[in-house]
Amino acid sequence: MQEIEFVLPEEIEKRSFEIITAELKERNILLKPEQEMVTKRVIHTSADFDYAETLAFSQGAVEKARELIQKGADIVTDTNMALAGINKNVLARFGGEAHCFMAEKEVGELAKQNHSTRATVSMEMAAKIEKPVLFAIGNAPTALLKLYEMIKEGTYYPAFIIGVPVGFVNVVQAKELILSTEIPSIINRGRKGGSNVAAAIVNAILYDLERGGS
Amino acid sequence: MQEIEFVLPEEIEKRSFEIITAELKERNILLKPEQEMVTKRVIHTSADFDYAETLAFSQGAVEKARELIQKGADIVTDTNMALAGINKNVLARFGGEAHCFMAEKEVGELAKQNHSTRATVSMEMAAKIEKPVLFAIGNAPTALLKLYEMIKEGTYYPAFIIGVPVGFVNVVQAKELILSTEIPSIINRGRKGGSNVAAAIVNAILYDLERGGS
Repeated sequence: MQEIEFVLPEEIEKRSFEIITAELKERNILLKPEQEMVTKRVIHTSADFDYAETLAFSQGAVEKARELIQKGADIVTDTNMALAGINKNVLARFGGEAHCFMAEKEVGELAKQNHSTRATVSMEMAAKIEKPVLFAIGNAPTALLKLYEMIKEGTYYPAFIIGVPVGFVNVVQAKELILSTEIPSIINRGRKGGSNVAAAIVNAILYDLERGGS
Repeated sequence: MQEIEFVLPEEIEKRSFEIITAELKERNILLKPEQEMVTKRVIHTSADFDYAETLAFSQGAVEKARELIQKGADIVTDTNMALAGINKNVLARFGGEAHCFMAEKEVGELAKQNHSTRATVSMEMAAKIEKPVLFAIGNAPTALLKLYEMIKEGTYYPAFIIGVPVGFVNVVQAKELILSTEIPSIINRGRKGGSNVAAAIVNAILYDLERGGS
């Protein structure tokens, strides 16, 4: 068995990113400089190098997300897990707030009344927030489908969509629908993703802003 | 592009598990009946079939975890994400409570004082809970290392360890150390895992108990 490596707690993240960088090189994967810190943080949170091949960024996506957060945009997630994972202290420093409406009583009642889903109703509630919203969707394809519907109807335009739900039913399709729109986005093509991945993408951008990254 | 499949919200999970079952068969992977619902829920939460090969269950692990929860054991996680993901309502029905000490002020102060980590201090706090504790560790290898140290010193015996931290530094080694003990466990060998995986394993057992599963 490998020996336990002595690494100071504060050095573990740095060492992890060094390993990721080295292994990306071994695999001959070259990331775009703009996207690098997002993709690496997703690999850091999943230990899954597949993401280097499947994450799709719209033109200038990272810069756009940075700008939005810097100007105080809110974040809406589709799970309390993603909400728990996002660094809300850093977000608050820029004036933004993170929300998840899924577990709210009203959402459950409306979903039942309208024969809809909690995720759908949550997106309708998010659309009422009177400032730009960056969506971080790690679980429910129906959340992406509702956003797509509103975009197509012209009733609401999300400022940004992080679309990384995980799963087997309508997940691949919902992601492709968002990719077919003009909305700035970071989407993980295919089945993989998750609340942890959604939170990691948001945090990559928050930490970069905190460092005053270029 | 594939068409959106019309599936009632309440049917999506069922349909997902059917797909997982079919694809495991295509891959000629045969799961042990006892472990099946845990492994499938982990694949459901990650869309990653690697887990079918890397999840390691100690003898009778699922039955042991079921019994513990049924008798009111508490759960301790090493992230608020895992805590958010665990179905605490179902757990409460059996008398158990879920805790995460990581973000508590006292934990931060003690970690600083003792040149230790939050995860280490959290495990020391968990060891003081005066009932059996099932640990669900999805992030910090240092949490597993602290549990291992206490087991070896004979100062504390966790009732059960779900050991699925993700990462690149000491993660593989920490998991193997727990596997070398006699503590009942579900461990994901290798680098992969995460808070979502830890929560999925706990929930698989909770949902099975709720259904009155065998």
